[in-house]
Amino acid sequence: MFLVEGNKIISELPNTNFKIKEIFSTNPQNLNFEDTLVHQITENELKKISFLQNPKDSVAVCFLNEEWKSEDRNIQIVLDGIQDPGNLGTIIRLADWFGIEQIICSEDTVDFYNPKVIQASMGSFTRVNITYVDLPEYLSETKNTNIGTDMDGENIYSFEKPEKINLILGNEGNGMRPETEKLLQKKISIPRFGNYQSTESLNVSMAAGIILGQLFRVGE
Amino acid sequence: MFLVEGNKIISELPNTNFKIKEIFSTNPQNLNFEDTLVHQITENELKKISFLQNPKDSVAVCFLNEEWKSEDRNIQIVLDGIQDPGNLGTIIRLADWFGIEQIICSEDTVDFYNPKVIQASMGSFTRVNITYVDLPEYLSETKNTNIGTDMDGENIYSFEKPEKINLILGNEGNGMRPETEKLLQKKISIPRFGNYQSTESLNVSMAAGIILGQLFRVGE
Repeated sequence: MFLVEGNKIISELPNTNFKIKEIFSTNPQNLNFEDTLVHQITENELKKISFLQNPKDSVAVCFLNEEWKSEDRNIQIVLDGIQDPGNLGTIIRLADWFGIEQIICSEDTVDFYNPKVIQASMGSFTRVNITYVDLPEYLSETKNTNIGTDMDGENIYSFEKPEKINLILGNEGNGMRPETEKLLQKKISIPRFGNYQSTESLNVSMAAGIILGQLFRVGE
Repeated sequence: MFLVEGNKIISELPNTNFKIKEIFSTNPQNLNFEDTLVHQITENELKKISFLQNPKDSVAVCFLNEEWKSEDRNIQIVLDGIQDPGNLGTIIRLADWFGIEQIICSEDTVDFYNPKVIQASMGSFTRVNITYVDLPEYLSETKNTNIGTDMDGENIYSFEKPEKINLILGNEGNGMRPETEKLLQKKISIPRFGNYQSTESLNVSMAAGIILGQLFRVGE
């Protein structure tokens, strides 16, 4: 089981392949569910069961879906050990925005059913298939071109885009594992414009957004 | 006064125009300050004074700088009522990455000295000038072109870029104020590719990152 919080996202669930077991709500009258058990609870009870600092109105207990991997899509996101739930949630939301249908994760990437991931992804986790695989094995077998970021990589504004892409994003602190790096076929980099050359880099989900903004550039 | 947490950022402060009053540290031996008062404290004391869920090693008490507005730069970020400290911090970090020297905020934008803003900006708050102004007044007087996002705006990949730009970002829930919108000279939009046409939009700081990625496109 896993939890989905807030009437807004809960109301989207019937149109997805996620099934609700039951709902605990402080305002059941605002939910329009016919065949689902909805329990009225108090604000205090909500605070006790919610994972949020500021609980919303309702918590839905949902069934985990069976995991599956669809065949490779033309553009996929591949995560090598992303640990921060907020980052995974943000990346799922980005994937949804750009119509990326599948995210492939190393086995040690944070669980997408983690309540903080579900929350940060908003409703997007219902529209993107997320699967956990043996990453070195997958990356050596895929027909997509494995692309990673590297300070010395090609400029994202001018590199030649392969037709089928795995955009690989590494762990927040340590980047990609050496085994993953060995399987890269292309390295790209976001040019930096700041004068002060501090050591700060972009957060991994922000870097992903800027790169996807280039991969999906159209209409020129 | 305001607080800066963590040895990494604190160590950058002597090279900036922020002045430290004193430092409370669990490991003063890791800090290399000659003329600054450094107090040794215990982990427990640190927990009490830190604003972080997982306190780092040290807390520096710093003097507020006098606020000033430099003349308009060629590309500036303008914030109309951003409320979330994490978003402001992320936007400051983005500005630093792209070498944007000034962020202009409406008076009701979250205070950048808020500990969560300082933390989310990493060390970037020391390299970007952040100033709070009467926004309608400023926007009617600036010589920069006021650009905002709008669902029906021009495609960010193809719109003609003015030479001097104010990129205006609105409040997380409500967007720009009507007074601000009236002062826009150009509207732009990030094309959406997802099939499912959900109501989700991008987070404001992510949208800023993708737009800045286009404004700074070079090397083609």
